[in-house]
Amino acid sequence: MATGGTINLGVIGLGRGLMLALPALIAYPAIRLVAAADPRPVARERFAAEFGARAYADWAELLADPAIDAVYIAAPHQFHAEQAVAAARAGKHVLVEKPMALSLDDCRAMAGAAQQAGTVLVTGPSHSFDAPVRHAAALIASGAVGAPRLITALNYTDFLFRPRRPEELDSAQGGGVVLSQAAHQIDIARLLAGSPLRSVRAVTGDWDAARPSEGAYAALLDFANGCAATLTYSGYARFDSDALQGGTGEFGQPKDPAAHATARRRIAALSPGEEIAAKLARAYGGASPALPPAPVANEQFGLVLISCERADLRLMPDGVWTYADDGARFTPLPPPPAAQYGAIAAFAEACRGGPLPPQAGSWGIDTVKACLALSRSAHERREIRIEPEAPSA
Amino acid sequence: MATGGTINLGVIGLGRGLMLALPALIAYPAIRLVAAADPRPVARERFAAEFGARAYADWAELLADPAIDAVYIAAPHQFHAEQAVAAARAGKHVLVEKPMALSLDDCRAMAGAAQQAGTVLVTGPSHSFDAPVRHAAALIASGAVGAPRLITALNYTDFLFRPRRPEELDSAQGGGVVLSQAAHQIDIARLLAGSPLRSVRAVTGDWDAARPSEGAYAALLDFANGCAATLTYSGYARFDSDALQGGTGEFGQPKDPAAHATARRRIAALSPGEEIAAKLARAYGGASPALPPAPVANEQFGLVLISCERADLRLMPDGVWTYADDGARFTPLPPPPAAQYGAIAAFAEACRGGPLPPQAGSWGIDTVKACLALSRSAHERREIRIEPEAPSA
Repeated sequence: MATGGTINLGVIGLGRGLMLALPALIAYPAIRLVAAADPRPVARERFAAEFGARAYADWAELLADPAIDAVYIAAPHQFHAEQAVAAARAGKHVLVEKPMALSLDDCRAMAGAAQQAGTVLVTGPSHSFDAPVRHAAALIASGAVGAPRLITALNYTDFLFRPRRPEELDSAQGGGVVLSQAAHQIDIARLLAGSPLRSVRAVTGDWDAARPSEGAYAALLDFANGCAATLTYSGYARFDSDALQGGTGEFGQPKDPAAHATARRRIAALSPGEEIAAKLARAYGGASPALPPAPVANEQFGLVLISCERADLRLMPDGVWTYADDGARFTPLPPPPAAQYGAIAAFAEACRGGPLPPQAGSWGIDTVKACLALSRSAHERREIRIEPEAPSA
Repeated sequence: MATGGTINLGVIGLGRGLMLALPALIAYPAIRLVAAADPRPVARERFAAEFGARAYADWAELLADPAIDAVYIAAPHQFHAEQAVAAARAGKHVLVEKPMALSLDDCRAMAGAAQQAGTVLVTGPSHSFDAPVRHAAALIASGAVGAPRLITALNYTDFLFRPRRPEELDSAQGGGVVLSQAAHQIDIARLLAGSPLRSVRAVTGDWDAARPSEGAYAALLDFANGCAATLTYSGYARFDSDALQGGTGEFGQPKDPAAHATARRRIAALSPGEEIAAKLARAYGGASPALPPAPVANEQFGLVLISCERADLRLMPDGVWTYADDGARFTPLPPPPAAQYGAIAAFAEACRGGPLPPQAGSWGIDTVKACLALSRSAHERREIRIEPEAPSA
């Protein structure tokens, strides 16, 4: 594709991931949705009709389409590696949903294929693309608040009680909250700390016999530069930390506080078959597709506090608080045109010859490495040292 | 003293610690303040006049007074051990301010002396005596919410910018936030977890050249029963976590949000000599003694969330939220008659033959052990295993 030109984008996987990104993909001026691949005929037919696009049952056929510049891989985790490697080999830029893949070997193959092909590879959207996170990272990089020393991230959600496929609740297949949700907090912490991760000590929780999977965790991350982060997460739909975020939901939407507590009951009323049906109903082409509502604020992933040498920062959906020695000030940050717009824009600009975001290339390897270390630390009840990634040949 | 009788109490150290406890000591019906020891004549004269009490320059003379049943040791940390051992040998019950002492050997000597004498030894007041903490511990012990799995405690204060003596900012002499403030969070976590501590991984922060000491920390505590706790603390007077607690201060008082940010400027304007004078002015008998205001709510020590197997609990100054599978409910807890009343009452009832609180006997040893492990983990950048305390001979 031409530098600065329009990106002809193909989507692999018309599921929940696409639904969340779709408003941003539509809103971003330089993206044209030209193709999709999905095993469900109803989703393909709907996509072809809505966007005047080509629709394939087999993603390999989509990758063979020479008109496509880039692909957004929003298929289930277990397919990411094969699809991303094939896409790079076909010369396509790749935006791959987090987690990048389920094993480090797979992640390395993906990064290596993109490097060899000279294509863009970005892992996202993740909440490290949220405007308040990027504003704080830029403030830290400017030197205005001193080095980051201590990051606290805390999020209590209903993750475990959203409609799921069986593998999404099987930790052995990458299910549970570690790869799906710790990836967000780890990305945020890595971006803010600005330093390689040195070690992880963590615990995980598996407290619901009806949803046996890792549903909660706490972790202490030690970065090479001496910055540290504590991450706490529970997906058990009890306390709702959005109450600490001005009542704004994950996608910057106004949130009904009562909905959180009912997630468990809604799921408990469904048989396994009904739960899969409920998930498909919310996907693209489903009976009740769940587009994210128009944002009234930025996306957010719970309480995030960053103590720097000369100020504390607190990320809020509508801006960033700076608590400095001369007082507190608030920098308002307007809502994006659509949820996930920041990640989509960063990927698109990289495809168009602009700068690569930090979340490009081998970034995702280190986040998956941190997620795997988090699980291992919890299982072995000890600190896990992170070995630096060897430079690729 | 007779079981159930009045406790004739002597106070060692008429400083800031006493000021915080004084309203509760006055309010508790079965306590009579009969003596005090302090090197400052002005404080002794004032105490003698206010309470019709005896006042000693030398604490050993106070301990020789046969009319005294119990002593409250509120002298600086470095004197706790010698005073507590001597008090036990003199047959006096002891309430000793946290931290119990500065070394494990000192703590063991104190617990051993009390055990040998058959006297009560309680370490406190600490925030583990706050009514919301005790309510949550009782709820957990009742089995109603399942086993505690994950505790999150977070507190951002102006600790480092309150008037200090030099040794209070010297980590080598037990200064900084670890022994003084982590002791609170560790006590809270230990009481809620209900299990011996197995290991600590922590980082500490020393970010202000004008106040070189440990001013912040984050720690992950792993308990033997599999419960874990993340503790985060900053005393750098930037973000104020009381904003998450309904704007209520540490002592259950309504709080002026602007006061927090000015702490640093007030201290920066003082010479070292003026700072010591400012500290003494706030002590008992000083020019502007700082009694805690009458509480409108319970004491609190920042955000505390407890994820149990069947519910999340959130401690608030005015009660406890329970987020269970059938919805959220709030248990209001009325304010105490005075700040620190819970700890004073627990100590007094133990002296009068009632049950010992968990914070009695060797309790303080394990909290100091955890504090020292926290510092050591930060310095050595590795997890520190906690060796169980050998049973005393």
